[in-house]
Amino acid sequence: MIAGGTFGVLLARRKGMDLVGVFSVACMTAFGGGTLRDLFLDRYPLFWIKHDHYPLIVFGLALASSAVRKIPQTLEKALYLPDALGLGLFSVVGTEIALEAGTSWFLAALLGTITGTFGGVIGDVACNEVPSLFRSAPLYATCSFAGCWIYLLLDWLAVEPLLAVVIGLTSVVLMRLAALYWDIRLPESSPGTPE
Amino acid sequence: MIAGGTFGVLLARRKGMDLVGVFSVACMTAFGGGTLRDLFLDRYPLFWIKHDHYPLIVFGLALASSAVRKIPQTLEKALYLPDALGLGLFSVVGTEIALEAGTSWFLAALLGTITGTFGGVIGDVACNEVPSLFRSAPLYATCSFAGCWIYLLLDWLAVEPLLAVVIGLTSVVLMRLAALYWDIRLPESSPGTPE
Amino acid sequence: MIAGGTFGVLLARRKGMDLVGVFSVACMTAFGGGTLRDLFLDRYPLFWIKHDHYPLIVFGLALASSAVRKIPQTLEKALYLPDALGLGLFSVVGTEIALEAGTSWFLAALLGTITGTFGGVIGDVACNEVPSLFRSAPLYATCSFAGCWIYLLLDWLAVEPLLAVVIGLTSVVLMRLAALYWDIRLPESSPGTPE
Repeated sequence: MIAGGTFGVLLARRKGMDLVGVFSVACMTAFGGGTLRDLFLDRYPLFWIKHDHYPLIVFGLALASSAVRKIPQTLEKALYLPDALGLGLFSVVGTEIALEAGTSWFLAALLGTITGTFGGVIGDVACNEVPSLFRSAPLYATCSFAGCWIYLLLDWLAVEPLLAVVIGLTSVVLMRLAALYWDIRLPESSPGTPE
Repeated sequence: MIAGGTFGVLLARRKGMDLVGVFSVACMTAFGGGTLRDLFLDRYPLFWIKHDHYPLIVFGLALASSAVRKIPQTLEKALYLPDALGLGLFSVVGTEIALEAGTSWFLAALLGTITGTFGGVIGDVACNEVPSLFRSAPLYATCSFAGCWIYLLLDWLAVEPLLAVVIGLTSVVLMRLAALYWDIRLPESSPGTPE
Repeated sequence: MIAGGTFGVLLARRKGMDLVGVFSVACMTAFGGGTLRDLFLDRYPLFWIKHDHYPLIVFGLALASSAVRKIPQTLEKALYLPDALGLGLFSVVGTEIALEAGTSWFLAALLGTITGTFGGVIGDVACNEVPSLFRSAPLYATCSFAGCWIYLLLDWLAVEPLLAVVIGLTSVVLMRLAALYWDIRLPESSPGTPE
């Protein structure tokens, strides 16, 4: 979540937004995916309303960031690992929650992936950018989706819940770091039709 | 739905997105309108969670499309009829659902139109384009809205439900095809104020 | 609400949209913030479905605007006061509703601010613009947020509810007009990292 919020802060700063924008985009990036999942599954109160210190943490983050004039260029790289951890955790927990709500396996994996990745999509859209998730870049949603299926398999094999979460999360992190390291990506689609 | 999903695929491919983007945009285009209606009316489970083979079909569509290198230029034209059918069906069924939920006539027609047309709006926004629905183009939302009122009238006249749906749907299809054929459109608004 | 809808109309006209676009953007601007609040708090029916003449009013506004060829340049300035009133009312009432739903103070102020300001964000995003709320401009969300806290303080002091609403609303209006008059704004964030 912290990593998600920080990416939101970086994105908003690149756009030269003021504190309102930085905080809003950070919240969207951090909470957007889980909010969609909760809305889709009719799960109330929403997770950030239930755990109401989450928005406070992001508010502190946005405030603190405004005191920092110069962000070291290495920060984005330093965020790769915490971001991959957040991706893994959100994906696997999202899958678990969807499964508990009685969805099919495919939907559970889909909702897990949405939980893990759509915060960034909402943040990008609000900043008037084509979502980076949709462009050809080192695998992100694919790692999340694969990790959700690993979790589903372990759950089906009746592996101890906590262990299943840890293995699912770890596999997402490893896939994501591998994709970054070897620059593995899905091919761009060709428009197919001349415009 | 298939037509909606296919338009999403075409849109995402024009943007050079990868499979994640193609699938996501196809889902937004196919399910966005109905999801908004279900969220607005507190109708759970959402229709694509209840009928959980819908996302699977769109997933298959996105996968299949990635195998096709060259999309024939005539495809968009070939989609006019199925798309008009989908527009009519979604609009009329959306109106029916809203009416059952106890809304007024105007709101029922509005929610029917949202069901029929807002998938495309969400897809366009996610692709960072001004929604084509909002620009001056051959009548689309207008056909949907008029068809919703025709359905409401028939419902008020106590016409047999299935017949009312079929007449409403058919009238949407005919209006849409006529609008395409004679290029009937609403006028652009003038900014009114010099910038 | 009227002011919010009118800003939506102006925005859509600057983009040269047709009536469908003008009405849609006006609705998003007028109802977007309250809809988010109601969805987040699981409050049904949504306020514009409960008070179903609201969309009709905006529809009339959009229709009427299409009859007006030339919008006087002074209109936007003339809207400052009604818009500030709407901002104040939506913010304070949003805070009250969130508080009743049992949220913490910080969340109540946040949801109040969302109610007051996010309609404009949704309208901007749908028109493919970076939300003006997020850019450095005369204080807007900040007035709303501060007014929400004033209301919360009065509520905590057990001030008579109606009086608390009026004081909260008035303070938002005064802060907003002061911010416009002296052009008070939050600083832009610096990207921090060279791109």
